[in-house]
Amino acid sequence: MTYHVEGVQIIGTKVTHGKGESIHYVNPATGESLEPIFNGSTLEDVETACKLADSAFDIYRETSPEQRAAFLEAIATGIEAVSGSLIERAALESGLPTARLTGECARTCAQLRHFSQALKTGEWLGVRLATAQPDRQPLPGPDLRQRQVPLGPVAVFGASNFPLAFSVAGGDTASALAAGCPVVVKAHSAHPGASEIVGMEVQKACSEHDIPEGVFSLLYDAGFDVGQALVADPRISAVGFTGSRRGGLALMAIAQNRPVPIPVYAEMSSINPVFLLPHALTSRTEKIAQGFVGSLTMGAGQFCTNPGLVIAVGGEALEHFCTLSKQLIIDAPAQTMLTPGIHKAYVAGVDRLAGNDRAKSIAAGQPGKALGSCQAHLFRTTADAFLDDQSLQDEVFGAASIIVECRDHDQMLEVTRSLEGQLTVTLHMDDDDLDVAKSLVPVLERKAGRILVDGWPTGVEVSDPMVHGGPFPATSDARTTSVGSAAIARFLRPVCYQSFPSALLPTELRDDNPRRLSRLVDGARVAAD
Amino acid sequence: MTYHVEGVQIIGTKVTHGKGESIHYVNPATGESLEPIFNGSTLEDVETACKLADSAFDIYRETSPEQRAAFLEAIATGIEAVSGSLIERAALESGLPTARLTGECARTCAQLRHFSQALKTGEWLGVRLATAQPDRQPLPGPDLRQRQVPLGPVAVFGASNFPLAFSVAGGDTASALAAGCPVVVKAHSAHPGASEIVGMEVQKACSEHDIPEGVFSLLYDAGFDVGQALVADPRISAVGFTGSRRGGLALMAIAQNRPVPIPVYAEMSSINPVFLLPHALTSRTEKIAQGFVGSLTMGAGQFCTNPGLVIAVGGEALEHFCTLSKQLIIDAPAQTMLTPGIHKAYVAGVDRLAGNDRAKSIAAGQPGKALGSCQAHLFRTTADAFLDDQSLQDEVFGAASIIVECRDHDQMLEVTRSLEGQLTVTLHMDDDDLDVAKSLVPVLERKAGRILVDGWPTGVEVSDPMVHGGPFPATSDARTTSVGSAAIARFLRPVCYQSFPSALLPTELRDDNPRRLSRLVDGARVAAD
Repeated sequence: MTYHVEGVQIIGTKVTHGKGESIHYVNPATGESLEPIFNGSTLEDVETACKLADSAFDIYRETSPEQRAAFLEAIATGIEAVSGSLIERAALESGLPTARLTGECARTCAQLRHFSQALKTGEWLGVRLATAQPDRQPLPGPDLRQRQVPLGPVAVFGASNFPLAFSVAGGDTASALAAGCPVVVKAHSAHPGASEIVGMEVQKACSEHDIPEGVFSLLYDAGFDVGQALVADPRISAVGFTGSRRGGLALMAIAQNRPVPIPVYAEMSSINPVFLLPHALTSRTEKIAQGFVGSLTMGAGQFCTNPGLVIAVGGEALEHFCTLSKQLIIDAPAQTMLTPGIHKAYVAGVDRLAGNDRAKSIAAGQPGKALGSCQAHLFRTTADAFLDDQSLQDEVFGAASIIVECRDHDQMLEVTRSLEGQLTVTLHMDDDDLDVAKSLVPVLERKAGRILVDGWPTGVEVSDPMVHGGPFPATSDARTTSVGSAAIARFLRPVCYQSFPSALLPTELRDDNPRRLSRLVDGARVAAD
Repeated sequence: MTYHVEGVQIIGTKVTHGKGESIHYVNPATGESLEPIFNGSTLEDVETACKLADSAFDIYRETSPEQRAAFLEAIATGIEAVSGSLIERAALESGLPTARLTGECARTCAQLRHFSQALKTGEWLGVRLATAQPDRQPLPGPDLRQRQVPLGPVAVFGASNFPLAFSVAGGDTASALAAGCPVVVKAHSAHPGASEIVGMEVQKACSEHDIPEGVFSLLYDAGFDVGQALVADPRISAVGFTGSRRGGLALMAIAQNRPVPIPVYAEMSSINPVFLLPHALTSRTEKIAQGFVGSLTMGAGQFCTNPGLVIAVGGEALEHFCTLSKQLIIDAPAQTMLTPGIHKAYVAGVDRLAGNDRAKSIAAGQPGKALGSCQAHLFRTTADAFLDDQSLQDEVFGAASIIVECRDHDQMLEVTRSLEGQLTVTLHMDDDDLDVAKSLVPVLERKAGRILVDGWPTGVEVSDPMVHGGPFPATSDARTTSVGSAAIARFLRPVCYQSFPSALLPTELRDDNPRRLSRLVDGARVAAD
């Protein structure tokens, strides 16, 4: 199915051209402005979208999990039907290669189906029951039943680096819709056309599945006014955001200063340290170097989980690793970055490192001919220097990384303790590295949401146990994940029903357990059947 | 066992007299200053306590759940052994009757044992596994395992109104210790002696159970400096607080403005609306009036869940209810309030209502002879007036309540929608009120953490399904509870272990499931055995 981009916003069932300032968006590979014109939404549009979302909330949250699951699956099917137009458009707007976007499109649809599946299992409802104890002394014990209920309308900010998987129908939207929350999306202004295509599919799924008007709206913003007004709107109950630390902190401040503060789930910055333990580094130098440079340069390094820091004890094996990595980096072709702004920030970040006496540039990749090309960069420093200069931990978003040479394992531990919060940390280890790994893991657990062994942090699996989150500044809230079914919990809160007559109880709390849920009953887990 | 209060603080294993400003604390029934002298802690004490807590964290969190369970039980046993001295001292410092404190002491110990029990079931670990899929196309699926890990040292603020159950070894401390987090308590300055007695028992349990130094410290504060420094300390990872809205907001601001923001679990204010539905009100007028005035005046109304608002449709039954309640209030004896400050605020709150044209005083209780006595007060207003004047929703902490007369059910719904966030809401209903109740529940779910039928909100059960929490301003974080085993989750965050060799995996994530946990495996709940 071919989709022709019109430059429209979606507010409930209304598809219109925005009346705000027009958005400047370009083909990042050529710098040319793109068509059609997208205008930003107005503050009245924010008001209308939030009002509709609020009106729809009570109806939407009463839909059955099966209905919401079918709705999410319909979105996935719809996106698949327009995937040709969508990928083409996203490639034009983002500079990302078609192969990558084909994968991201499949991931986006698989993610919607993952949440659909999670909805049906009902784990997210967190049902806990306590039987009444009428004869208990000195006082009778009441009948108590707990379930999770949705928070309310959620504001979702599209991410620049995943125009599909973390944007209009990405993880934040999918998990909020699964939870029973209406969503108002603020599209990322770098890929408005791809946002429209996906948005129209979400809207179509709404109408085909009798989802009330207002459960989904899609707004645009030429600057920051629309996004800020959205977070400040009293009907918005939570915020999902993936982007820069500055952007995340700004949204957190708005959310905290509202008359009624709300949670912000901002995924912000991470340099994803990789530890090369001595035996693994010696026995698999080449394989690790290849894996490292592959993970670092993939997609111009524009992943939140890009390996921006490598930590190892100095010696022959590390020198060999550096030599191999250097050559691989030199050969690495350049790739167009997502936006001129991201490219500019990358160049500035690399220049900052190059101008820092504490770091030494050891390799630069192919410079690339297209505008906004990301030339890969590899730096080296010592643990002493790294410990002296906190700025070496600043994320350089793109294909740049620093190798930190430690004197010994004690210093490696010291470097580990000095790290800021991260999304991921990775250990490359052989069996003989087990003792060193055991000394590191307790420190790493305090630093990151995910710890990998012998893998690479890019390529975040959409799965129940996934944690795509981590201590500040990796995210604004380490208690959650933005990928995988546990992400639903971000948009829920518990309610306890005390001494309710059966006729008034929510279905999933009834004695006869019609939803066949696994439940915690009087302190013990009771299976569905 | 008799305990003689010394006026000491506890920092790790060190029991010393504080060197800060001395704390002014009194017998609230007489206004007389009490002995011995308690000095506030110093900022150096905060520093030392936090440093010790941080050092102890990695060791403490590696203790087995069984060890921590035994530790919590030992605290309970220790408190029981000194309960005579403790209750006597708490009565002197709080003005609360011995019977109430006897109940609170039993509740505190039962609560410690509740968390001990919850630790053993392992539900709090939230284990989720996904099996590796080496042959998956286009990419293999990794082995992923998730568990919850503790956040780090927690700052707990003792509450004035529960000198035992929400103070030194109250719910916040018990749930944080259960989670594996060290605790630094800032004692409430109104009951320093009771705090010391409990603190010494916690310390004794630490030494008897090989709990590392720093897992528990107890500080005092003559003003706000110690508490503020504690929340600002970089080693503190979360805050538990029960108290005023002003106090909670102040701590939230400090926590949010740290270089690394941390969660604050502040339980602040709630007026706990009670809905009298027409058939119940008609058929059980007397019983409901008795229950209402009993719940309102119990403990001088100094409960977070005190019923400060009654909502009903006008008519004969409501008039009868008012007449009966009025007489019961007039007969209600006065009780000493917790502190001169709380009494002053109560009198000011009652005066504010009395001076508000929109509310009408209909009854005042016995004035009481002792200093700081709480004279019960009952007011009436109309829904029109209530909807006009948001200040009628301001909590008056103590035995004061307002009856709101609605024109009809539609107006009752309108009043319901206008409510701020609450800890509880209560419905009194007969079978014939079911339809009205059904129309209210969806609104109530958005307003409160707990909804009761035919009961009274005071007397919060310590139980797995309990939610003692609710939307702002009832608490700072509606996604949690401060009572019941689910409170442990406040001090945890998820970590995902990807492709870990078995020898490096945390025990509870191993394939052989040695802890016999119920786990989520590849999307399905798998029982322990």
